[in-house]
Amino acid sequence: MESRTVSESRVIKTGLVLPPDTNQHGTIFGGKVMALIDEVGAISAMRHAQKLVVTASIDSVHFINPAKLGDILTLESFVTWTGKTSMEVFVRVTSENPKTQVKKLTTTSFLTFVAIDENGKPSSVPQIIPETEEEKWLFETAVARRERRHQSKKEFESFLEL
Amino acid sequence: MESRTVSESRVIKTGLVLPPDTNQHGTIFGGKVMALIDEVGAISAMRHAQKLVVTASIDSVHFINPAKLGDILTLESFVTWTGKTSMEVFVRVTSENPKTQVKKLTTTSFLTFVAIDENGKPSSVPQIIPETEEEKWLFETAVARRERRHQSKKEFESFLEL
Amino acid sequence: MESRTVSESRVIKTGLVLPPDTNQHGTIFGGKVMALIDEVGAISAMRHAQKLVVTASIDSVHFINPAKLGDILTLESFVTWTGKTSMEVFVRVTSENPKTQVKKLTTTSFLTFVAIDENGKPSSVPQIIPETEEEKWLFETAVARRERRHQSKKEFESFLEL
Amino acid sequence: MESRTVSESRVIKTGLVLPPDTNQHGTIFGGKVMALIDEVGAISAMRHAQKLVVTASIDSVHFINPAKLGDILTLESFVTWTGKTSMEVFVRVTSENPKTQVKKLTTTSFLTFVAIDENGKPSSVPQIIPETEEEKWLFETAVARRERRHQSKKEFESFLEL
Amino acid sequence: MESRTVSESRVIKTGLVLPPDTNQHGTIFGGKVMALIDEVGAISAMRHAQKLVVTASIDSVHFINPAKLGDILTLESFVTWTGKTSMEVFVRVTSENPKTQVKKLTTTSFLTFVAIDENGKPSSVPQIIPETEEEKWLFETAVARRERRHQSKKEFESFLEL
Amino acid sequence: MESRTVSESRVIKTGLVLPPDTNQHGTIFGGKVMALIDEVGAISAMRHAQKLVVTASIDSVHFINPAKLGDILTLESFVTWTGKTSMEVFVRVTSENPKTQVKKLTTTSFLTFVAIDENGKPSSVPQIIPETEEEKWLFETAVARRERRHQSKKEFESFLEL
Ligand SMILES: CC(C)(COP(=O)(O)OP(=O)(O)OC[C@H]1O[C@@H](n2cnc3c(N)ncnc32)[C@H](O)[C@@H]1OP(=O)(O)O)[C@@H](O)C(=O)NCCC(=O)NCCS
Ligand SMILES: CC(C)(COP(=O)(O)OP(=O)(O)OC[C@H]1O[C@@H](n2cnc3c(N)ncnc32)[C@H](O)[C@@H]1OP(=O)(O)O)[C@@H](O)C(=O)NCCC(=O)NCCS
Ligand SMILES: CC(C)(COP(=O)(O)OP(=O)(O)OC[C@H]1O[C@@H](n2cnc3c(N)ncnc32)[C@H](O)[C@@H]1OP(=O)(O)O)[C@@H](O)C(=O)NCCC(=O)NCCS
Ligand SMILES: CC(C)(COP(=O)(O)OP(=O)(O)OC[C@H]1O[C@@H](n2cnc3c(N)ncnc32)[C@H](O)[C@@H]1OP(=O)(O)O)[C@@H](O)C(=O)NCCC(=O)NCCS
Repeated sequence: MESRTVSESRVIKTGLVLPPDTNQHGTIFGGKVMALIDEVGAISAMRHAQKLVVTASIDSVHFINPAKLGDILTLESFVTWTGKTSMEVFVRVTSENPKTQVKKLTTTSFLTFVAIDENGKPSSVPQIIPETEEEKWLFETAVARRERRHQSKKEFESFLEL
Repeated sequence: MESRTVSESRVIKTGLVLPPDTNQHGTIFGGKVMALIDEVGAISAMRHAQKLVVTASIDSVHFINPAKLGDILTLESFVTWTGKTSMEVFVRVTSENPKTQVKKLTTTSFLTFVAIDENGKPSSVPQIIPETEEEKWLFETAVARRERRHQSKKEFESFLEL
Repeated sequence: MESRTVSESRVIKTGLVLPPDTNQHGTIFGGKVMALIDEVGAISAMRHAQKLVVTASIDSVHFINPAKLGDILTLESFVTWTGKTSMEVFVRVTSENPKTQVKKLTTTSFLTFVAIDENGKPSSVPQIIPETEEEKWLFETAVARRERRHQSKKEFESFLEL
Repeated sequence: MESRTVSESRVIKTGLVLPPDTNQHGTIFGGKVMALIDEVGAISAMRHAQKLVVTASIDSVHFINPAKLGDILTLESFVTWTGKTSMEVFVRVTSENPKTQVKKLTTTSFLTFVAIDENGKPSSVPQIIPETEEEKWLFETAVARRERRHQSKKEFESFLEL
Repeated sequence: MESRTVSESRVIKTGLVLPPDTNQHGTIFGGKVMALIDEVGAISAMRHAQKLVVTASIDSVHFINPAKLGDILTLESFVTWTGKTSMEVFVRVTSENPKTQVKKLTTTSFLTFVAIDENGKPSSVPQIIPETEEEKWLFETAVARRERRHQSKKEFESFLEL
Repeated sequence: MESRTVSESRVIKTGLVLPPDTNQHGTIFGGKVMALIDEVGAISAMRHAQKLVVTASIDSVHFINPAKLGDILTLESFVTWTGKTSMEVFVRVTSENPKTQVKKLTTTSFLTFVAIDENGKPSSVPQIIPETEEEKWLFETAVARRERRHQSKKEFESFLEL
């Protein structure tokens, strides 16, 4: 299984914020943003793995600026790190008012996807090759994030009985 | 503004996992789960605040077991803690195979919602009153989660330039 | 096949009334309410039967109060009576204005679901055990409703040639 | 306000049964059929009234034959009777297998719509003029259905406290 | 394989223009109209062919009048010409303001569908029999449209490398 | 009103082909592709015009290869030419099997959008500046396409009475 560059996994998804996506103040629902983040992230992971993937976890997200009805929403994602069967994917979401063309960051997110085989079991993935400075920095800092994630999964398990 | 009990904010949402929600292995998309989590969480927060709310952040989530096409998905949520204008909401998601009736935990999640007024500005919320043991425990541990959340937001900001 | 209590079949579904669900006065479409009624009713029936089900009939419904854009809509359902392969399910729908917290009854409905086997043929279901006063009253009055339903089906057949 | 013929209110809606509309046996959900019935019925009522309308009630429906994934579903509707502000609408639903071209009746339904003014209050509608034999028969039998409907509404009210 | 008349393939689809279908001026998206055109056209083609069909091409369309939120949209379609495996279908779209009852033409469109067999390969279709003047005229002018279409496909191929 | 480069209007939209988008052979509906083409095209036009836009026409499209359930669908669009109030936009659609990573061209399309002001009237747009060889070639050939489009509109009008 040959390794692959980060750029091969890059995905862009641009769309309009429509009425079913917004509350009565015309602000997009956080859950709608999460659904889009998961979709582009999964495409990046599938492009890298050449296999079906499932979402194992989503790191905490902060919604910095509200995207509004009629805004252009752009999501960009790429694989930042690979384990044996899991991949870390970074997603950035920005909104843009088509009239004023003011762009605002909505949120960023790190997700972990696991490649699965025909029986739904974890299945190995190619190694990722970071090339740019940004890619390298994200790759190097990934181990610490993974550490924290596994710790958070343990704490998470304390809520399972609730 | 009188305070309100946790139980007044409890919301249950039950539904079926349908074809548009699933990948080719018949597994629900993580993003679909997130969209539902945000919807029930927002209803809990609105019930408590009697105001419109927006999602400020979602703590990290781990998907423990896959929900499948045809499963019954149940989400339960309630407010666990209140600040001046923000509310922490806990959501638990379980899936149930209608034939075998085996129930599995899909995930749990903590979200923070902020109440907003007519101009979209943060607006104060009633205090929450925990009553049961579980509610009290979640209430007491909320401050530490809030602390970590604010720290995670700072780290988060280091990715804003990416 | 052991019998099961009414409470084991109870389902709650809470959601927000969104723009695609409403007409230009911001009133929910009756058909949208019916779709939700059928969904929760089917889940109650599947929980009881542990089998797939199809909707055989829906008794007449009256929409008492309009649910509005932004309202919280709550549906509750449970099995009230069982035959050999069919189940009567009761559904109650209420709307709630999140700001004023005024609750209104939207409608109630009795549906009949039939459990089906792998070939789509009617298949037997466990007996239902009513426990509370309300459940017992609904159970006892079910035979008369079933009588009227079968009669209405006969009259119904006079329109089939239209 | 001039009167109008039944035929001026006739509406036909043809569509395909798609994956999100069906259960795991590929059978359309009853609730999906009801949503379509309400939509075409409302269009017939609006065409007759030249006003916005709301659904006041739906008489009992029986699903005679299952419509299947890939079937062509056809709904036909027209106004059968008018009161002061209310209209009775008849809807017939048939499914058709595109390969065998076998057509089956799915269900028929009588709905009552009420025309509303700008403030959402009941508002008067033109009188209907039945022309064909079928239209005249439906018109003449409408008073008895209305009688039964108002009685069913009274009984219905006995469930409002449940 | 017996031939079939044009009228056997006629399809009508009436619906309401809802919030998710429109931009911020309440005007329907052109793409939403195209999706509906393709759906009714495919049903006409399937009715004629008694086989599954795929869209091979859509001739240029011009949107003459904007359909608006709350309008009644009506699509009518029928097969106008048949080749060996392909069928030309004509679709007409009109919008109607339910209050003023002013009707406007939205657009018309010619589409080509190809019948496919179980392996997705082109599969022969019955011959079409035009009966009315309009049908005969459309049938006779179809060969010229087909000619132009195949030429446009060739030019089209010059953009494939872009 | 300053002129703007083609590249400022470039839009990419990547997504997955899901069950509601496909027929029973798992092939995407042509109408679904058209809806996506119109959405990305409109975003390119809005980005260039900094105004709301409506679709005036779509040139003939040919579907070269079927996109399949589970494929990754990528749309790319940019403004190729500007008139006083209208813009020509080019859209290219490709599908990609995530497992084999074989990419296929689905179709390409030229659309014309018109910028509109607050009253829905045509409103002037900045001039476009083509920079690359491809952009220049598309710009130069646009006048001929516009010519043909206007001629096709005239012929189109002969079908308006049908
Ligand atoms: C994700 C899942 C396959 C992991 O299963 P598992 O039994 O824990 O598998 P393993 O212990 O072999 O771990 C497989 C990989 O996943 C990683 N992983 C598991 N849980 C994780 C989590 N919560 N966050 C990040 N990575 C995780 C492991 O570190 C391991 O990575 P590596 O192979 O690169 O070293 C399993 O939990 C699952 O099916 N979850 C549901 C996924 C889903 O359906 N999501 C959609 C919404 S429900
Ligand atoms: C419902 C259906 C399975 C019944 O088939 P059938 O040949 O009449 O079956 P039976 O006569 O054996 O009746 C089976 C049970 O259904 C009940 N039943 C049948 N039609 C009914 C109706 N309209 N209302 C209430 N109960 C009904 C019978 O009383 C019987 O109940 P029991 O077993 O508890 O005594 C069949 O009509 C059907 O498939 N309809 C379509 C269902 C569907 O797909 N709905 C979704 C929208 S189309
Ligand atoms: C329908 C509604 C407007 C009737 O209001 P009301 O106060 O009962 O009005 P009125 O008593 O003046 O009745 C108006 C007409 O409706 C008819 N009507 C009222 N309830 C009815 C029912 N359940 N079934 C049939 N007709 C009914 C009356 O007979 C009367 O008809 P007429 O003018 O032709 O003689 C009101 O109940 C309502 O708003 N319901 C919610 C409608 C809705 O939003 N539906 C969508 C899903 S919630
Ligand atoms: C349409 C398709 C099956 C044609 O395949 P092909 O290899 O060109 O097939 P053939 O050359 O045997 O042509 C079959 C028929 O289609 C017609 N045809 C092919 N391309 C056409 C086009 N762009 N416009 C009109 N007719 C066309 C041919 O004239 C021929 O008609 P006839 O049998 O009546 O004489 C193929 O291009 C395809 O699968 N396209 C994708 C269709 C699709 O999935 N659309 C949905 C959106 S992607």
